[in-house]
Amino acid sequence: MNTENNSATGACPIARSLAVFGDAWSLLILRDAHAGLTRFDQFRKSLGIVPTMLTRRLASLTQEGLLEKHRYSETTREEYRLTDAGRDLLPVLVMLGEWGRRHRCEGRLSRMIDVETGGEVKPVVIDAVTGERIGTRPLRLEVPAA
Amino acid sequence: MNTENNSATGACPIARSLAVFGDAWSLLILRDAHAGLTRFDQFRKSLGIVPTMLTRRLASLTQEGLLEKHRYSETTREEYRLTDAGRDLLPVLVMLGEWGRRHRCEGRLSRMIDVETGGEVKPVVIDAVTGERIGTRPLRLEVPAA
Repeated sequence: MNTENNSATGACPIARSLAVFGDAWSLLILRDAHAGLTRFDQFRKSLGIVPTMLTRRLASLTQEGLLEKHRYSETTREEYRLTDAGRDLLPVLVMLGEWGRRHRCEGRLSRMIDVETGGEVKPVVIDAVTGERIGTRPLRLEVPAA
Repeated sequence: MNTENNSATGACPIARSLAVFGDAWSLLILRDAHAGLTRFDQFRKSLGIVPTMLTRRLASLTQEGLLEKHRYSETTREEYRLTDAGRDLLPVLVMLGEWGRRHRCEGRLSRMIDVETGGEVKPVVIDAVTGERIGTRPLRLEVPAA
């Protein structure tokens, strides 16, 4: 991993991601958006988050292009919907869940089920080029010259 | 995803993970640990983080079992090394990097190279059971009864 710096414009793509949503509330809002929630009150109730904090994070996620705000004139109700960039966070959320499932497994735990097979999903990260699991082959980080 | 609650002991494994390291600094420290950094000064210099904040996060990551503190009597130098749980965070970091690579791609960007093939790694999350990419098949969340 690049250790050059941690700014939003540095060479490290992990740091760039964390500059956008390196915050538990933001990731939990995105989790809930993936679960189908769209309205302020739904997020507030699900997360038990203070309204001012929820407002700030929804504004930030909208500004960063992970959520889109829609307003319906008939009801004046606002909805927050995932953008393509927001939908692309599913693999991150799934792997966060997998870590929790392995290392914080006490008590009852929700499971992700493949609707068609009825079996539990076992998410793993592979390199699509070699087909091998990440961590099983030596990797190096290439940082371009400044 | 489970929207039941967001506590460290709730049924959602994503929320349990975020209770441990749902913080940009903690994830950047773990990134740097995966890059081979072990010493306080190395982390401080790499991240440009205020020492008191670094101390607090290293203590928390150690207490949560992601880092282990080693002290060498010859030098009195302390090292923080990844535990198995810390090493298991690699897939999360890799997918965070992949999101940044896709959605914050302006300017120069570090790349992850497979040492053997010399090619760039293309990390994707699949379900090891079906072999299919996460997001291409319908999933549902099963939350056990309280």
